[in-house]
Amino acid sequence: MKIKVKFLDISTEPLALMHESDAAEIGAKDNDRVRIEGKHMTTALLNVSDSFGTPGELILSGVLKKKLKAEDRDELDVSYASNPESVRSIRRKMDGGKLPKEEISAIVNDILDGRLSKIEISAWLTALYINGMDIEEIAAFTEAMVDTGDRVQFDRSPVYDFHSLGGVPGNKITPIVVSIVASAGLMIPKTSSRAISSACGTSDFVETFCNVELDAQTLKRISEEVGGVLAWGGSMNLAPVDDMVISIEHPLGINPRAQMLASILSKKLAIGATHLVVDIPTGSGTKVPTIEVAKAYARDFMDLGEKLSLHIECAITYADQPVGSAVGPILEARECIRIMEGEKHPSSVIEKACELAGMILEMGGIPNGGEKAREILASGAALKKFREIVAAQGGKPGISSSDLVPGEFVADVVSPKAGYIHSIKNKDVVSIAKAAGAPADKGAGILIFKKKGQRVEKGDLLFQIYGDNAAKVDRAKELSAKYRPFDIEGMLLNKITAMKAK
Amino acid sequence: MKIKVKFLDISTEPLALMHESDAAEIGAKDNDRVRIEGKHMTTALLNVSDSFGTPGELILSGVLKKKLKAEDRDELDVSYASNPESVRSIRRKMDGGKLPKEEISAIVNDILDGRLSKIEISAWLTALYINGMDIEEIAAFTEAMVDTGDRVQFDRSPVYDFHSLGGVPGNKITPIVVSIVASAGLMIPKTSSRAISSACGTSDFVETFCNVELDAQTLKRISEEVGGVLAWGGSMNLAPVDDMVISIEHPLGINPRAQMLASILSKKLAIGATHLVVDIPTGSGTKVPTIEVAKAYARDFMDLGEKLSLHIECAITYADQPVGSAVGPILEARECIRIMEGEKHPSSVIEKACELAGMILEMGGIPNGGEKAREILASGAALKKFREIVAAQGGKPGISSSDLVPGEFVADVVSPKAGYIHSIKNKDVVSIAKAAGAPADKGAGILIFKKKGQRVEKGDLLFQIYGDNAAKVDRAKELSAKYRPFDIEGMLLNKITAMKAK
Repeated sequence: MKIKVKFLDISTEPLALMHESDAAEIGAKDNDRVRIEGKHMTTALLNVSDSFGTPGELILSGVLKKKLKAEDRDELDVSYASNPESVRSIRRKMDGGKLPKEEISAIVNDILDGRLSKIEISAWLTALYINGMDIEEIAAFTEAMVDTGDRVQFDRSPVYDFHSLGGVPGNKITPIVVSIVASAGLMIPKTSSRAISSACGTSDFVETFCNVELDAQTLKRISEEVGGVLAWGGSMNLAPVDDMVISIEHPLGINPRAQMLASILSKKLAIGATHLVVDIPTGSGTKVPTIEVAKAYARDFMDLGEKLSLHIECAITYADQPVGSAVGPILEARECIRIMEGEKHPSSVIEKACELAGMILEMGGIPNGGEKAREILASGAALKKFREIVAAQGGKPGISSSDLVPGEFVADVVSPKAGYIHSIKNKDVVSIAKAAGAPADKGAGILIFKKKGQRVEKGDLLFQIYGDNAAKVDRAKELSAKYRPFDIEGMLLNKITAMKAK
Repeated sequence: MKIKVKFLDISTEPLALMHESDAAEIGAKDNDRVRIEGKHMTTALLNVSDSFGTPGELILSGVLKKKLKAEDRDELDVSYASNPESVRSIRRKMDGGKLPKEEISAIVNDILDGRLSKIEISAWLTALYINGMDIEEIAAFTEAMVDTGDRVQFDRSPVYDFHSLGGVPGNKITPIVVSIVASAGLMIPKTSSRAISSACGTSDFVETFCNVELDAQTLKRISEEVGGVLAWGGSMNLAPVDDMVISIEHPLGINPRAQMLASILSKKLAIGATHLVVDIPTGSGTKVPTIEVAKAYARDFMDLGEKLSLHIECAITYADQPVGSAVGPILEARECIRIMEGEKHPSSVIEKACELAGMILEMGGIPNGGEKAREILASGAALKKFREIVAAQGGKPGISSSDLVPGEFVADVVSPKAGYIHSIKNKDVVSIAKAAGAPADKGAGILIFKKKGQRVEKGDLLFQIYGDNAAKVDRAKELSAKYRPFDIEGMLLNKITAMKAK
């Protein structure tokens, strides 16, 4: 039927809102699709209502304006459109079937182009979560995701990369690893993400001292000239479908294994990586609670690497408590730079960064990688390389840790009793840092003074809450009293080691 | 943060649209929830965009206006709100867990009150589809759904009812069954539905000769006075959460067993039924493809009936082809009334209606129910009762089949060759009837002249397409040529019988 259209900026989805009587006329129901045709044709997801909208008027989300090349009050043709074929493939996955490459690719492309609704993407992710995918399917999934975006082509090869599965707060090792690896002459074009549910992603703290939004051209140039970059992955069009999926996973609180693996590896393939080290932080309150789960992930990564012609090694790292002392953008940046300046504390950060950098060095043919990484760090070569990278990314030349000043509002949290720190709950630490304003408030976060296994007396400082806003710091302090993120008990000893998967 | 609001009638969901910079300020992401507070408080589902919306402005869907008692340009407080607890329960179902009564009830109530988004409801339905529920969970689910709406309390008892699982086109037995049962002195307050994906629901054809939108008071009065009604269930507030769920199931093309069972039984409990016959149409192209599946459903219904103190019996009925000859609102109404007027054809309709009515009569203590039902039909008592019901529902007194005139546009479809009708594909029949305009165009549909097992010669009339609109009839005829819903082959005989479950 012919209908007058009106564009409203109401959603990033291609929505069409129609009065019930018109919808009945074309035989379409709520959450069906409609085909809209004027000079150009597109499909949209239908919302039907009897309580608003005017019969004879079709309200379209602004995103469709460009596709249709139409204006308000244009008369376009609207008709019922059947579901894309990929809905059948989703149902096949619900039924536990294995999907061929072409069907996986169709799903990925239909998500990218807005042909699948949030309802359908949610069903897809839930089916993936419950029924999973085998390695062959995940490899096809990964390649389909790569194909949705750009690929960076380097003139240099090999291309080294690393990725941390995340889930552990305070994991500020990336600039140290990149600086060490680039110092050793290996190229590492590292892209990172911003926080999704955490208090501070790598890009959240790197952007406190330099620009992270690099286009592909700039990333390529800096990587080839300086040997490394510290870019935000989101600023390039790498496997862009991933971001759309994340926004659906987020409210459900799920991250299906297949989706997670394909998401990580597609971005690495898109950036042109040939050699990859994957850090799997393992501990309660992270994505990977036990060594057994971590080993299964390591096997998945390695099997996938083989299928995708990407050389992968995995490190299972200790993550039962935050890495280092600082959580939050400026606090993490400062701690990270201090270590490159020669500070010997916190040793957990140094140990983790050097072990991971060492694995990459060994992939690059440099023996005794861990030792070599420590040498590069101790010699000041890493700091020099780090400053080159920062300057190339528009940061202050000769950047130093004293340039980074955390929030002006500080609250102390002290131990309510004497004893040993039995555990530090990662999730509570994250919640408190977020309540203080992290990651949006750059100066907000937490500085930890006691770690697991340490003896404390009553009244000893456990951690400080920093913030740019007094009310948020107060709220964070209230939360601390409620959550009690530090468990203090009798004697306990715990040996902390980094382990490589077989 | 304080923010200026603007209401737009954009969705039946409680949506809040916010600029990315504001969302970052309150620490909320796309598809999160926000708490909005002025004189009144509510939560909404957040949509975040960087490409539209103005920082400092919050666009809210009109449905929130009433809840907030606010006006355009009011300044309200908006803040991040965590997910409702029920999202955790949904995740527990994804993980294969069994949910306690309270958690099921919380999910149902959160769907009803708009606290769960389409994303989350879709995940819930997908998890139900894959992981299922046991009988105890389904009973709790059913009761929770009943509690979301009104309950009809009759002064008479027992209350008889029946329900057909659907999926077979042309199933116009309801007015016949209700008229027979009411003639026998049993009360049967029958509510039906409109088509969801079919060409004609019971209410779609009943409303061609009387009003089906009865409020609970009217339904009660007519049932108690006349013995039966033919109401549209949607006009009462019976287990209303079901409709919200259907609109999410629909695009996915799923109807999880637990949801289906709870949906049917909650409406029956809400209407006050004490005795229920469930018709399970079984055949290819229906919801229930095989006798084995049908028996499993029958067992589910009977087990659930026991838990819910509802006396249930099931009939597994033949559904490999349409019931009777007519598909589409006026065509079905005419065929149904003709049978009550004494017409002996199509016998499949008479047989099915009398067998089902007979089962209800037997539940009511009347022996040889099927025979008794045939007597009531043959005596004209059913027609008399039917006319009483129609008149009570505002239809023409003394209604006759000749009052029902199908669409003026007719196309004939003839057999391309000689042979026996090997199969008639239900799904194709439905698609063709819908293409002709059913159920919105009341005169549209299909009239079938040959059924399975019958001999046809080349050029014999197989079926006619009726419609109110010539173009739609043409399109339906084109579809017929494409689908070929009738398979014609060599010799084939098929005995058609109605069977009761054990």
